Formats: sequence, structure tokens, C-alpha cells
Amino acid sequence: MLVFAQFGAGRIGAIHAGNLAASGTARLKHIVDVNGPAAAALAGKHGATVSDTAAALADPEVGAVIIASSTDTHADLVIAAAKAGKAIFCEKPIDLALRRVDAALAAVRAAGVPMLVGFNRRFDPSFAELHRRIGAGAIGTVEQVVVTSRDPGLPPIEYLKVSGGQFRDMTIHDFDMARWLLGEEPTEVFAWGAALVDPAVAAAGDIDSCMVLLRCASGRMAHINNSRRAAYGYDQRIEVHGSDGRLIAGNRVATTVEQADAQAVSSEKPLHFFLERYAEAYRIELAAFVDAVARGAPMPVGAEDGRQALVLAEAALRSLRENRPVKVAEVA
Amino acid sequence: MLVFAQFGAGRIGAIHAGNLAASGTARLKHIVDVNGPAAAALAGKHGATVSDTAAALADPEVGAVIIASSTDTHADLVIAAAKAGKAIFCEKPIDLALRRVDAALAAVRAAGVPMLVGFNRRFDPSFAELHRRIGAGAIGTVEQVVVTSRDPGLPPIEYLKVSGGQFRDMTIHDFDMARWLLGEEPTEVFAWGAALVDPAVAAAGDIDSCMVLLRCASGRMAHINNSRRAAYGYDQRIEVHGSDGRLIAGNRVATTVEQADAQAVSSEKPLHFFLERYAEAYRIELAAFVDAVARGAPMPVGAEDGRQALVLAEAALRSLRENRPVKVAEVA
Amino acid sequence: MLVFAQFGAGRIGAIHAGNLAASGTARLKHIVDVNGPAAAALAGKHGATVSDTAAALADPEVGAVIIASSTDTHADLVIAAAKAGKAIFCEKPIDLALRRVDAALAAVRAAGVPMLVGFNRRFDPSFAELHRRIGAGAIGTVEQVVVTSRDPGLPPIEYLKVSGGQFRDMTIHDFDMARWLLGEEPTEVFAWGAALVDPAVAAAGDIDSCMVLLRCASGRMAHINNSRRAAYGYDQRIEVHGSDGRLIAGNRVATTVEQADAQAVSSEKPLHFFLERYAEAYRIELAAFVDAVARGAPMPVGAEDGRQALVLAEAALRSLRENRPVKVAEVA
Amino acid sequence: MLVFAQFGAGRIGAIHAGNLAASGTARLKHIVDVNGPAAAALAGKHGATVSDTAAALADPEVGAVIIASSTDTHADLVIAAAKAGKAIFCEKPIDLALRRVDAALAAVRAAGVPMLVGFNRRFDPSFAELHRRIGAGAIGTVEQVVVTSRDPGLPPIEYLKVSGGQFRDMTIHDFDMARWLLGEEPTEVFAWGAALVDPAVAAAGDIDSCMVLLRCASGRMAHINNSRRAAYGYDQRIEVHGSDGRLIAGNRVATTVEQADAQAVSSEKPLHFFLERYAEAYRIELAAFVDAVARGAPMPVGAEDGRQALVLAEAALRSLRENRPVKVAEVA
Repeated sequence: MLVFAQFGAGRIGAIHAGNLAASGTARLKHIVDVNGPAAAALAGKHGATVSDTAAALADPEVGAVIIASSTDTHADLVIAAAKAGKAIFCEKPIDLALRRVDAALAAVRAAGVPMLVGFNRRFDPSFAELHRRIGAGAIGTVEQVVVTSRDPGLPPIEYLKVSGGQFRDMTIHDFDMARWLLGEEPTEVFAWGAALVDPAVAAAGDIDSCMVLLRCASGRMAHINNSRRAAYGYDQRIEVHGSDGRLIAGNRVATTVEQADAQAVSSEKPLHFFLERYAEAYRIELAAFVDAVARGAPMPVGAEDGRQALVLAEAALRSLRENRPVKVAEVA
Repeated sequence: MLVFAQFGAGRIGAIHAGNLAASGTARLKHIVDVNGPAAAALAGKHGATVSDTAAALADPEVGAVIIASSTDTHADLVIAAAKAGKAIFCEKPIDLALRRVDAALAAVRAAGVPMLVGFNRRFDPSFAELHRRIGAGAIGTVEQVVVTSRDPGLPPIEYLKVSGGQFRDMTIHDFDMARWLLGEEPTEVFAWGAALVDPAVAAAGDIDSCMVLLRCASGRMAHINNSRRAAYGYDQRIEVHGSDGRLIAGNRVATTVEQADAQAVSSEKPLHFFLERYAEAYRIELAAFVDAVARGAPMPVGAEDGRQALVLAEAALRSLRENRPVKVAEVA
Repeated sequence: MLVFAQFGAGRIGAIHAGNLAASGTARLKHIVDVNGPAAAALAGKHGATVSDTAAALADPEVGAVIIASSTDTHADLVIAAAKAGKAIFCEKPIDLALRRVDAALAAVRAAGVPMLVGFNRRFDPSFAELHRRIGAGAIGTVEQVVVTSRDPGLPPIEYLKVSGGQFRDMTIHDFDMARWLLGEEPTEVFAWGAALVDPAVAAAGDIDSCMVLLRCASGRMAHINNSRRAAYGYDQRIEVHGSDGRLIAGNRVATTVEQADAQAVSSEKPLHFFLERYAEAYRIELAAFVDAVARGAPMPVGAEDGRQALVLAEAALRSLRENRPVKVAEVA
Repeated sequence: MLVFAQFGAGRIGAIHAGNLAASGTARLKHIVDVNGPAAAALAGKHGATVSDTAAALADPEVGAVIIASSTDTHADLVIAAAKAGKAIFCEKPIDLALRRVDAALAAVRAAGVPMLVGFNRRFDPSFAELHRRIGAGAIGTVEQVVVTSRDPGLPPIEYLKVSGGQFRDMTIHDFDMARWLLGEEPTEVFAWGAALVDPAVAAAGDIDSCMVLLRCASGRMAHINNSRRAAYGYDQRIEVHGSDGRLIAGNRVATTVEQADAQAVSSEKPLHFFLERYAEAYRIELAAFVDAVARGAPMPVGAEDGRQALVLAEAALRSLRENRPVKVAEVA
């Protein structure tokens, strides 16, 4: 049974801790969080101990860490955990600065520890099945990918200010999806964005709506559209066109109830946010990490994947600022 | 080009006349209707002549008749047209009384003229495709059929009083669908009905809601549910279960527009009534009649089919009155 | 924290034990099963003890029992648990014989203990939402209910022989659904059945396919269709027609992937069997039981509901044998 | 009754002629085509006369022309028809060269004749309903538009060579849709394209797959994806995101039949090509033209719309060649 120390007792930390508790194959021993009461509450709920970073990493029983603290702490914790020889499960992004990502990755490589970056969407059963079918040749050669990814509502402006901006905070998931589904590394990025939802977003130097194109050396292309607000909830859909057909993975709903009345035929809105929509993905993701550590198998999403999605975000940001297509090699 | 005389210039007559005009393979020459202005209007629209029955049937140029007048005139017109040697397209039902249906069918057989009974639903592209797939073995051996058939709203009570009642007026279409899809003649009928929509229906001696079961010698079964009122429009669906799978044919909509908003994800209600829903079926039905006459081929829905659906309606009526399953042989 | 003794370590017992373990509000202390290795395995997995009935019921720490053993043991265990003053969660059916059900219910009433009968479908989120909307008036007055309930495949003939027959073993869930959704007690039942899937079923004195009608004093009606075999998996759908509209709850799928290729546009088959389809329902059901015990609140599905569904099954069986509609009062 | 002369007796000409014949409000008098037998066949079918351009335009009875001949003849015919004072229905594009489009539009303005450019998709009932709802405020302010437009199969390379390329031949419809739905004139275009379907397309100097972005001064954005080949048929979908929700208009199918079997749950592929998918749109488009001429009302799609879509195609072409976003003002 793999023993964990977890950094971060916030919203996403609570999910991982709950999944660890229910997994039957892992145990949560240490919780570390600068917010003492949050750490104590989560530790209490799952029979873990509140520790500090040094103590948690020094514990020889601990085989793995979950890094679910604020983004600015990720890189340092990755480096410390790598030095301590722990397997690493790190929430995305590793860091907002590529330089620090590279430092973290170097530490991981030097230590030879396994590391998974938390691109949870790869574990969503629908997206995973879509990817599996591409691999099985169901639609021939992939030609075009369309990723629709729209949040239910704008986060607080204070959050946006430290988020790294829409591309690094939100689109980063979609860059990972696009790379994964294209089956070929994108070499060029073009991006437009605007603050259509709220002028306060522009005032904070960010955008809330964007459209991005990616292309690969072979000519394959991907499109991503994002908005920070969808009146009907969390809109997460993927469409892949290949030489022999098309695959679509759509939204999930809480119930299949359909109502027909004098107004319309109506069904449920999509599950409202990522906690509900990706609940199953988070559970499967953690189990895949535990399983890969146990078997000494390659991580299903590697540290390099975390870096590469950030590189695409950097290229998009430069494209947005300079209003021109940007070669990935320019920013990598 | 087949030349037609048409009896009846009402709602359904207008549809057939329009389809004749647009067919390119047939021509409408005579319109006969007791309602002079209606006859004149329809004749004028399509370049036909207002005639009386005798003149229309005496015209040697006329090769076929459409009988779309009131139900109580059908049997006499069938007999007269048969004697005149015309091919006959007769709206359902042939008559409300089995005795008179038999007299009409005897005249048709004696004259050796072809006759089609207007079970338009057999020509609906979705139901026809479902039937075709059954024949092609797509779901193996048919075991159970479920017919959902619900009108958008109650007709005038005055109409109900002369309609022959729900089974002979409305369910008769579903009896035909069930027979056609079961692929085996039902031998027994059980029916319950009630006036749930409007007590005035009960006062008129009729029902507006019913559930019917049919079964065949082999054990195959069918269920029909009807209502005279559906708040969301015309509900016409069929479901067939076989040893290797299931086929469903659903409602048609005017547009594919789907709206997602803060309330729900909603799409169009079904097409509102039979004139819209079965517009294509009426067109195909008439073309099939003209084609069968031209080729001397068997009618796709024969006079005997018209009789058999009425027999099932009779059995259902007896079942309703006596609250017991009724063998078809009892009423045939 | 409510402490449980559980009778039965089979397939359904494993589900309940797993849900108890994950609930956080209850604890499994005793496992009782005539199959020693099964009991030991399940007890081992969840840190429980293998006990016998007497010891389990004598334990004062035990507040509640789960009865998930073979059907013929249910009534005796209900009586014993009631006498021991335990809250009772009993899988359906309470017994195949109404006389023994009544004896069990009398014991429960005499002891004043709470009892839930395991009609898990009431806790399926889609069916529960459909029911909630009926109560909220979304479709006005209920008029007709259609329950489609088809198993993926025939169970072993040996099982069928002790199952009590299709109505008491399989349709009993649908009788409960129909009662619950009609919102009025059915007063009359009509049923047809046949062995269409396998003649061995007929040889065993049972049927594998049926169509049932129910009606209430007000004229409301319900239809149930069942088959023991559906090539495409577990087909569980409900449709309710009311004065102001229609509600449908459909099947659940593992993924939303839709594939369009040269053949067709295709999506996933329904979840294959009740363990997957109703996994969430089982979890919610047990939580509702624990919660009702904790709050001293009425059970969401009472012992009387278990009896009434069996009464409808008895009426259906008599209807099938005598080929006539049977008043519920005849068998109650 | 408006009397027409029609130029062009090919595939699209046959559609318009058939719709004229069935319209009841217009009459086809002259057919002009360099292909004599095709002209004679179409004229014969609809009781029209084979004429030459001069004779057709000199006929004072002729009130309107349909220009459905090859693209390189459109501009000259527009000019000639305008000088003859005829109302003009011109298939898209008016010309491949903006200069000649301008000359044609100048002639139309000088003559003061009404002109409709054949963007048939605006008359598709689903797209029209989507547009109507935007206007009615159903989704608040439009923010992003996604147009999916994929042909079932590659046309002959010989056709491609004279087509003007994918943007002017195929995407032009999508440029029109995007403009129409954005509700604001796009000011900038970015486009990537490749020959992914067949290298022969690249050899002919064209592309067969593309992804395009458009943006407006307000920040609104649109995405178009195109392919010349879709294994499952004609894929024509539109998605519009606004401040209060989302509208989607999807593909049309021939039947609603859904088959569930041991493999999957499958439904019909989309209608296979534009002749079937847009049959209704062509009929409504022509009726709208006839109606606007009769009432002296503004054309629902004006000559200027034809020019503006071509301008967007020009901008896309320059963007593709120079791999940079192109301001519409650069090419207009």
C-alpha cells in the first residue's frame, strides 16, 4: 500500500484525499498546508497527520506525494520531493515560467523518480475512449481536432491576476488534449482573444474568450475555443475528424430525464463544473498513478507533457500579443 | 398519365389533389363534393372540373379514383367505382361496419380492380425503413412491438360522435402498424380505455385514452397507447424488439436547432399534426398507387388490410365493453 | 455511526458491503452466510467478522441489518431482526408467498422497527428526478405510464426454477415503478406472457417475455413490457404522459462517444447490467436508509411497498393463467 | 405570375427549374445553355423553350432571370440582365475576381434591378431558425460562432482547377454564414490550409482542408473548419455562443430509425450531399426571391452580400499564402 504525503488542502486537495481514502490501494499519511485549519480538517477527515514539508518528505514510509498547493509552490515542491526520492503527482501547471519548469524537470530526471502531471481530462472515460478508438484506427488518419472548452462562470478577478492568464490557466488543458489527440506535436500556434465577458478582465490584463489554431508538420490542424462563461454550465466537448470518419465526445448530464411540454422538448444542462464533470477522471487518474508506481510502469501523463502544454500556452500568448502565428520552436 | 376523379375536397382531399398536381405522372380531372364551393375551389386550383359521381365515373378517360369524402360514403363509392372498372385509392376506414366493408370488398374482387386503402403511415420514410430492416433481418425474429400514437388535441365532440369511436377512428392506424410490423396476424386483443382528457368524451359514449395489447399464435405481442391530447404535439413513435436487437422510429422535427441556456438544453417539439408529419408519406403513398396501377403490380396496402385493421378495432371495442380478451375470430 | 450485520455475501451483498465501507456514516460488523468462504472473503475485505445469525442479532452494538441472502430466508430473518429490535434493510422480494410476507410485516409492526424494501430503482437519479418532476406538477395530472424493462440475458434455468417466475422475480421492480409513478394504487391487472427467448423456460414452467397492463380507479393506466434478453444490454426506460406533457428517463451509457463513419452514426450501448446501471442507485438507497434510521424519519420505500408489488405480481400471475383481467382485491 | 429565363441546365439549374415548376407563383419560359441537349431536356420537362441569351433577355414578358451557368459567365450575364431590366437570381459566386464582381454590381445599381445571390444556406429551416432566435435575443449578445462544413467527397481535380480554390468555391458559403450570424462585419481573417485528402489537390495548387478564424472590431470571433471529404456524408453544423447561452443547428437525416444491437446503438448518417440536405432551402430561397420581386421588397440576400463573402475569401487566400492575419480592408 503506497503511502502519501499531500501538499494542499484546498478544493482539489480534498478531491485527491477523498480518492486516496476510497482507493483501497493507497493511504494518506501527511497533509501539509499553510492554511492550518484547512489542513487539520482534511487530515482529521481521513485519519492523516498535519505535517510540515520537511517532516513529510523525511518520512521514509512515504512513497509518493501529491502536489495540490498553489501554483507558485509547485516547482519547489517537485524539486524537494524528487531529491527525497518520492514519486510525484503534481497538479498542472508545474509552474507559470518555463525556466522554473525546466529546473523542476531536471531535478526529477536527476533523481529518477516517476512523475505524473495532473491533466485529468485524459482520464475522463469519454475522452479516453475517443483516444482509444483513434489508436484502434476507427477513423483512419487524424486530420482535424476541435476542442470546445467553456467554463460556467468567471472566477474572481483576484484569482485571474495570479493565474498566469487564460492560456496558462485554462487553455492549458485544451493544449494537452489537442496534442494528445492530434498524435503529432504541433509546430505552430495562432491565437486571438478578447475580454467579452467582463471589461474587468481586460483591466486585469487578461482575456476571457479566445480562439486558437494549432498545426503540425504534416498539415494536421486543431482548433480550440474557450470562454470563461457559459450560461448553461460547463461545456467540454471534443471532435476529431479523420480520413475514415468522425468521433465526438460530449457533455455529461446528471440524469437522462427529457421533458416534452407545450414549450419544447428539454433535457438536463451539462454537469455544472469540473468537480462534478471530472469526478470520475480524478479518481481514475490517481488510481493510474498508484498503479504505475506499483508496477514501475511509465506514467500515463509524463512531466514532459506538462512542459509541452505550457510551451503551447507561451506560444499562444506571444501570438496574441504580436498578432502573428508563432512557431513553437520560438518559445520552446 | 393516369387520370383521376377525386371524391372529397376537404382537408385530406386537398393534400391528395396537391400531390397529384405535383406528381408529373397523374392528372386530376374531376372533383366531386357535396360542398359546392369547396369542390370549385379545389378544382380551380388544380385545373380540374367539378362533376357529380355519375359523370366522373362514366368518363372513360378516368382510370382511377381517390375516395376522400366522409366515411359513410366510402363503401358506396368503392362499389360504384369498382363497377365502373376504376382503380381505387380509398381513405381509411372503408366503413365503420364490417358488413358493409365486406360488401365493398366483394365488389372490388368481382370487378378485379386494384384497390389501395390509405394507411399512409406505411409510407412514412422512417416507419418504412424500420419495416425494411425487420425484413432484412436486422433484429432477428420480432418478439414485441410498442406503438405510441398520441394526437395533439381533442377533435370537436361533434366529430367524435360520427367517428366510430377512438378504436375505429384513431387506433385503426396503429392496428395496421402493429399487424404490419409483427409480421404475423394477431389472434387476440385486450383493451382498456377511459375519458381522461375531457368528460364530454365519455358523455358522447367514447374514450380519449387507451392501452391495447395484441398477441399472435406464436406468442409475439404488441402494445398500443393512445391519447387524443399531447401538450407537445403529435407523438408518433414505434419500437420493435427482436431476438437480435431493437429498432425505434421517432418523431420528426421542423428544425434541428438546440438551445442551451440557464434553464435547460431544449430542442423542437415534434411536428404538430398529421398534415405536417405525414406530408411526405401522403406523397409517397399516392406515387406508389400510381406506380402499382401503371405496372399492374399488387397494391402495397390492399383492401384486405383495410378490413383486417377494422376487425382488430371491433375486437378491441368488444374487449373494452366486456372487459375480457377477445379472440379475433369472434368478430371476424 | 450505525453498526450493521449483513446476511448474504453474494453479488448483491458485496455491493451493499462496499457501499457501507465507503459511506462514512455506517460500519459493517457482522457477515452471515451459509457459504463460509464467501462470508470470510467479504468480511476480510471490509474488516468485519463472520458470525452466525444468532450472534449477529444478539450483538447490542448492531443497530441495523441488511438482508441480502437467498429469497427463501428473507421472511425468517425479517422476523428475527424485528424481534431483536434492529432496523431492517431487506432485498426484494420479502418472500414469494404473500402469507409469509404478511407474517414478516406483522412482526415488523409489532416490534415497531423501521424497514426498507430494496426497490433500488426508486433511487436511480434519473427515475428519482422524473418522479420529483411529476410531484412538482411539470406534466400536470398523470394519465399513462410505460415501463420498458429488459434484461441483457437469460439467467440459468436452475435460477429461474426457484425465482418465483418472471412476475415475482423481474417484473416486481416494474410493478413498484408503475405504482410509484401512477401516484394511485392500481386496482386491476392484465398480463400476457410467453417463452420467446428459450423453450427451456417454458419447460421450467416460466415465461421470459411479457406485456402487462395496470389500471386505477380514476382510469389511469400503465403498461410494462419485459424480456429476459436484449442483445444490446440492459434496457431500462420509463415514460410518463400527463395532461400537460411527457417525461422520459432513458438508459445510461459508459461514455458519450459518438462515431460517424461510412456505415452509420453510432453511440454506446446501454450499461450492460444492473450492477453498473444501478450502482449509484444502490449507494443512494443505502445512504437514505442510514439517514432515515438516524433521523427517525419514515422509510422512503416501506415494507408495505414490498407487499403491494408482490400483490400485483400475484394478480398478474393469475391473469396469465386464467387469461382475464384480475382485480387486485381478488389476491390482496 | 413572374416569368423567368434561366441560364444553365446543369445540376443546380435542374433544381431551380423544378422549384419554379412547382411554385405556383412563377413560370419558366426560356432555358439557355451551351449544352444543347441538356437545355432541350430541361426545357422539355418543364414546358419551356430553348433560347439564346439575347432572345431570352429581349422577351418583354420575362421579368426575372436565374443565372445558374458556369461561374465564368455569371458577371456578364448579370450585366446583360441588369441592362435588360430583369430581376436577377444569381448563383454564387458572382465571379472569382473582385474587379468583375464590382463591375456587375455597378450595372445592377445603375439599372436599379433587384438581385439575390444564391447563398441557399440562409434559407435552410434550421439555420434560419437559429438566426431568428439570435435576433430574438435567445442567447443574448453573440460572442463566438463555429461553422463546421465538410463535403462528402472530393470533386474531380479538373473541377478544382477552375473552381477558384477551396476558399472561393466552398468556404464562401461559410464566410456568408459567419458574417450573417456574427451580426457584425469581420475585419480580420486568418487561415491555414493543406491538402490532407489527396496530394493531387496540392499538385493542382489548391487545398482540401482548412481552418479559418475571423474577428470583428468588437472582439467577436468565428471559426470555420472545412474538408473536401467526410466518410459519413455531408457535415453541416453551426454553433453560436452568446452571453446567455448557446444555439446549435445540426445535420438532417432521411429517417429517425435507431438500431440497437450487439455492436452499438446506431442512427442514420447525415443526408449525403447538398442536393438532398438543402432541397428545402433551394425551394424556400426561390420562393423568397419571387415574393420579394412581387412585393418590391428588399432581397433577403443582396448583391453586396455576394461581394462581401468573396472579400473574406480573398483575405483568407492572402492569409494562407503569407501566413499572417489579413485585415479585410487590405483586400476590399
